Amino acid sequence: MLKNFLLIALCGAVMLTVGILLGHYGIDKSSSVPGWVQDVSRDLDESVVQDFLAEVDNKQIEGFLRELTRVPHMATTAGDEATVQYMLKNWQDPESGLDRAWTEQYLVYLSFPDPKKPNKVTVVAPNMTVLHTAREREKSYGPDQEDPAVVQPYAAYSPAGQPQGKLVYANQGKPSDYMRLNETLDLRGTIAITRYGGAGRAAKAINAAPYGVAGVLVYTDPLDINDGLMSDANETYPHSWYMPPSGVERGSFSTKYGDLLTPYLAAKVGTYRIPVKNITGIPTIPIQPIGFEDAYVLISQLGGEAAPADWQGGFNCTYNFGGPGFKPASEFKDSDVKLEVFNYAELRNSSNVMGIIRGSVEPDRYVIYGNHRDSWVHGAIDPSSGTSVMLEVTRVLGRMLKQGRWRPRRSIIFGSWGAEEFGLIGSAEYTEQYYTKLSERTVAYINVDISVFANATLRALAMPSVQNLIFTAAKQVKAPGLDSMSVYDNWIRYSNRTSPAYGTIPRVRYLSGAGSDYAGFVHYLGITSMDIAYTYDQTKTKARIYPAYHTAYDTFDYASRYIDPGFTSHQAVARTAGNVLLRLADSLLLPLNCSDYAESLEGYLATAVELYQTALTSHSISMEPLKSAVVLFRSAATQLDQFIHGSDLANEIPLKVRRINDQLMLLDRAFLDPQAFPEKYGFRHVIWASSSAGKATFPGLADAFARASSSGLARDWATAHHQLSILSQAIEGAAHTLLDVI
Amino acid sequence: MLKNFLLIALCGAVMLTVGILLGHYGIDKSSSVPGWVQDVSRDLDESVVQDFLAEVDNKQIEGFLRELTRVPHMATTAGDEATVQYMLKNWQDPESGLDRAWTEQYLVYLSFPDPKKPNKVTVVAPNMTVLHTAREREKSYGPDQEDPAVVQPYAAYSPAGQPQGKLVYANQGKPSDYMRLNETLDLRGTIAITRYGGAGRAAKAINAAPYGVAGVLVYTDPLDINDGLMSDANETYPHSWYMPPSGVERGSFSTKYGDLLTPYLAAKVGTYRIPVKNITGIPTIPIQPIGFEDAYVLISQLGGEAAPADWQGGFNCTYNFGGPGFKPASEFKDSDVKLEVFNYAELRNSSNVMGIIRGSVEPDRYVIYGNHRDSWVHGAIDPSSGTSVMLEVTRVLGRMLKQGRWRPRRSIIFGSWGAEEFGLIGSAEYTEQYYTKLSERTVAYINVDISVFANATLRALAMPSVQNLIFTAAKQVKAPGLDSMSVYDNWIRYSNRTSPAYGTIPRVRYLSGAGSDYAGFVHYLGITSMDIAYTYDQTKTKARIYPAYHTAYDTFDYASRYIDPGFTSHQAVARTAGNVLLRLADSLLLPLNCSDYAESLEGYLATAVELYQTALTSHSISMEPLKSAVVLFRSAATQLDQFIHGSDLANEIPLKVRRINDQLMLLDRAFLDPQAFPEKYGFRHVIWASSSAGKATFPGLADAFARASSSGLARDWATAHHQLSILSQAIEGAAHTLLDVI
Repeated sequence: MLKNFLLIALCGAVMLTVGILLGHYGIDKSSSVPGWVQDVSRDLDESVVQDFLAEVDNKQIEGFLRELTRVPHMATTAGDEATVQYMLKNWQDPESGLDRAWTEQYLVYLSFPDPKKPNKVTVVAPNMTVLHTAREREKSYGPDQEDPAVVQPYAAYSPAGQPQGKLVYANQGKPSDYMRLNETLDLRGTIAITRYGGAGRAAKAINAAPYGVAGVLVYTDPLDINDGLMSDANETYPHSWYMPPSGVERGSFSTKYGDLLTPYLAAKVGTYRIPVKNITGIPTIPIQPIGFEDAYVLISQLGGEAAPADWQGGFNCTYNFGGPGFKPASEFKDSDVKLEVFNYAELRNSSNVMGIIRGSVEPDRYVIYGNHRDSWVHGAIDPSSGTSVMLEVTRVLGRMLKQGRWRPRRSIIFGSWGAEEFGLIGSAEYTEQYYTKLSERTVAYINVDISVFANATLRALAMPSVQNLIFTAAKQVKAPGLDSMSVYDNWIRYSNRTSPAYGTIPRVRYLSGAGSDYAGFVHYLGITSMDIAYTYDQTKTKARIYPAYHTAYDTFDYASRYIDPGFTSHQAVARTAGNVLLRLADSLLLPLNCSDYAESLEGYLATAVELYQTALTSHSISMEPLKSAVVLFRSAATQLDQFIHGSDLANEIPLKVRRINDQLMLLDRAFLDPQAFPEKYGFRHVIWASSSAGKATFPGLADAFARASSSGLARDWATAHHQLSILSQAIEGAAHTLLDVI
Repeated sequence: MLKNFLLIALCGAVMLTVGILLGHYGIDKSSSVPGWVQDVSRDLDESVVQDFLAEVDNKQIEGFLRELTRVPHMATTAGDEATVQYMLKNWQDPESGLDRAWTEQYLVYLSFPDPKKPNKVTVVAPNMTVLHTAREREKSYGPDQEDPAVVQPYAAYSPAGQPQGKLVYANQGKPSDYMRLNETLDLRGTIAITRYGGAGRAAKAINAAPYGVAGVLVYTDPLDINDGLMSDANETYPHSWYMPPSGVERGSFSTKYGDLLTPYLAAKVGTYRIPVKNITGIPTIPIQPIGFEDAYVLISQLGGEAAPADWQGGFNCTYNFGGPGFKPASEFKDSDVKLEVFNYAELRNSSNVMGIIRGSVEPDRYVIYGNHRDSWVHGAIDPSSGTSVMLEVTRVLGRMLKQGRWRPRRSIIFGSWGAEEFGLIGSAEYTEQYYTKLSERTVAYINVDISVFANATLRALAMPSVQNLIFTAAKQVKAPGLDSMSVYDNWIRYSNRTSPAYGTIPRVRYLSGAGSDYAGFVHYLGITSMDIAYTYDQTKTKARIYPAYHTAYDTFDYASRYIDPGFTSHQAVARTAGNVLLRLADSLLLPLNCSDYAESLEGYLATAVELYQTALTSHSISMEPLKSAVVLFRSAATQLDQFIHGSDLANEIPLKVRRINDQLMLLDRAFLDPQAFPEKYGFRHVIWASSSAGKATFPGLADAFARASSSGLARDWATAHHQLSILSQAIEGAAHTLLDVI
């Protein structure tokens, strides 16, 4: 009986245990755990990054570049349209394409030379004999230069006109240069020859007009681009990367960005356009670029006194001011220089090509990656080095997507912008048309325009908050040609700084101008942005930029022989930028660092205090509000960082990480003030706006201070105070977005 | 044996079953279901709404009002400071207070009469004898009027000055009124008397100055406020709600809102201030308000021709233009009217009182509820009727909060604004200081300024997207004094319209001006806003506003006897506005309807097409971009609505409802354009900006069209086209935010 009882008890106990185990583990309770609980907290998968890095292929990039550069593809030409179709073909590829790709057109105001009446520059004797005629086309060294689609060198947005007058040399065409010349010469009716550099393209003519100068020439001095070398017999392309004597830098001669007729409006068919006569920021007198071969002929014959030492260039002659005009002993004695500029402007349809990958968890958050597609001629480096890198990034990501190996957490938008060369037009119109949507949802913008200037080192322009993200990405990529070194370690050798927080780190430069398509994103939309490229060793060359820039020599041949043989620097940029893109798209917590922003603001503040405080105080303007705003920003950034570090974001309510991400994403938006710079079109970001003061500090304050110190007017000191208040309020407002949300 | 076996088997089966049940249900598996899964999808609890409605107490409101109106509390006076402390005491109450309450100060530019040199209005005979002196204080009917803190009637921001001249009657002081007068009279050196209504306060003087008018008087005509009644023996207060003969409407005589010295900047101590001489939008000639008792003395003696019929007011005399000056038969014959205005302006510290309840799930989403605290005198109705309602809302919510019965999903911010009467200053400075944070996070702003103008019916001004929310709330509240009828059902009897979507519904009016503290939220920040009050039966009175408005008679006695005896209309407003607040704070899906916005845009478009299309077409301006923008908006709204209806938001990934809520929350932001109205300070919302054209359509287009039709200038037609493009782009941009996010 006892035995039976024990048996029953034992059996019961066993069955109870089996039952409990079965009940607890055997019956699925997961119906009560929603499926999305996993998705919502999924973080970046490092193995996806490794796959991406492994699959980026230099040979593919080379192939893309070859296709993109078959013909010249200046904005809105047949060559440009061919690249539109090529982008679409790649992005719509069923095996390596994106979720969707399409084009968006804008009707934009572009300026061209007249193929039937080429622009001319001549030396005309008093008896009207033409003593010299500048080249109308660059010299040919191969079939690329002979393509009939190569546009004649010209200054886009220069007015047409045929001024004739005595020549003067105006150095770089800065205000101070014309002021200096005007001290000894009557500039009325003269033609001024200037060299590139020191002032914007349009500025060289705009600065001249008030002195009565009738026309302007501009050329690239061999000192500024070729390290002094000049001969195409053995020194310049096709023997090296240097600019041949007939090479001419084309460009947009406008100080504004975006379509000139539709300020702040997307240039659609029915959009209001300002009258052409109301356009500002472009030359009012004709200007024409020429090669240094022709510039030498003119400058070497100039009369008058010798120009100052810092006006002298690379020619083996003294650069004189001009009599005005040529030396009495010259064959050009008493001759004029005549410009015949027949440029015309018209509305043209320009396309952006857009492509997207839809995010799986946060489709309403966008990471945007873009580059322009249009070039001046073949544009192998500018912009096709960047376009081929973008195509490689999309090919690898597209394959991972189509094979079901990956889909980003956030949405990714790719933009192949049109008409950048005429003033960042495609990207600017895009930011105008989709202002609200982009402003509300964009996490960051990555710009890779010229991806490889040269193959020495990475360089990045960026907001401070992405500094560490770029570092993280660069540490995972091998430096081209250096087996055991990362892109990061190589970079730090070429360019570094000492950070109070990190010690020695690579120097990331600020995005303070409007040099490429990031301008609309940074300055108009306040979106955290960066521009990534490989570049040269500045100890080895003084070239302003790679020498074939905007010439007919920026070809596949040039790129593959002198810029990046083997395309491994292109590959390194594709890996770095793609890695940055993946981290922005997939990380649970956005990889944006607000404390690094604080460090930059503190640096700017220290400079401002050093440069301005004494003078401001003497005008009863206190810098205390600015100082306390920066202190508040630092403390808010520290607080947010501590809050993040004290959180277990993957396991807490998913609205918490979203909230923090919103704080990080929107940080740069807080620095926008549409009233801050009434005279600077499209600049609203009070920290990174362009500045003419040339100081590493807050631009509005720097410019206002420079003006006030120079004029001494109470009105200008009031403006400096106003700028200080605008700035303090923006920084304080930004700090408030980082503090505890309520 | 078999029996034993069966017993064992049975026992085993029972134990197994018990085990399975225990294992499945008895052992907590919830460690695998995060606790936040419940919280994140929790929706509004209707029982909380019912508790709130039940606990709102008219007696409490009466008590708050009594306290708030003990003494005059004009901005920055001791009385104002007492209300600051009273707000803090309530909001920091341990049993019914908020999570936190504090004050924020701004140093603002205010204008006052000089107590030592009161402003004077006199009739002066040629021999300098004073024949008549207008009252300097309103007549006393009780202790309230005798309080020494009652400010003398004056026109804030009128310059000081002592003009003297012949009197003319200028009707309402509109541009057309002065133009008409100027046809027959030389206005140089005259004093113009005007009546309130038809034009803004400041405009009555601003419009006069170009004609050389030296000073302006303004009074309230009994026709416009008292339904013609005039005698304080039996007709006006203290016998009724009507204005006594000596009553004077005070007010801010400025056309802008916000602190006048710190445009777009919060008025802090170190903030840049524009020079006082650069202030625009305020009178350049002295202006002074007087009672109709004194106005009658002046107007009844005026000489000259009889003014037109629509210039005639309620006095039992003919309103003549003035000779200029008085009738030859008058005792005032040849006399001048003299104004002595000694107003001065100075910087004063004004406080906002802020209070918050932290949201449990989405603390970074704000519902803001506000009202100003400052009055002109005792301000029982304006603004204390609203303040007492706000205090009752916070008392009931605070109790629920402190008792642990409730915490909102989103954060709630309460604002008791300072210095509203001088130009919405407290709220405007707040929106300037916290621009970015508020713009990014604010779901909606609820304004309850004057909560009860009269006790007949609800009235609401609002963005179209909250129409249904207000209806839902109003349906749950009993109409005061009508047992079986809801506030909604009562409202529809007084004011309704036919909606294409809903049939007959109450008419919600648009927030198109800057009449109260919603201005900064609507026009500067683009935040969905509403203003809620009880008001009168317009069939029973033609009063412009409640007659004691801005006089020394707007007292507790007046409010409790003539505006809302029993305070049940206050209670109904507290219930309705509080219900709206709860729904905005607690609903899982934000109760904002974008299709209702589409209906309003379609209405505006239909009006614009009817009024403008023919003329625009004749100037080669197409309305097609605007039409297609509105069509796109409608289709995007429909798409979003369908997406919402096809979703199971409580059970899907929580980022989905957050994404939709962001689309709804940010919709009004899409209509902001800081470039749209360069001449209108603080107006950026292209749909609801103020307009002088007086048409129920898009304000920028309406104003530009009116100007172009009037001038016929090509430049003005171009501006109309420009406005059309600004508008089309904003509506299209808004539509893009409602479409599928990628």
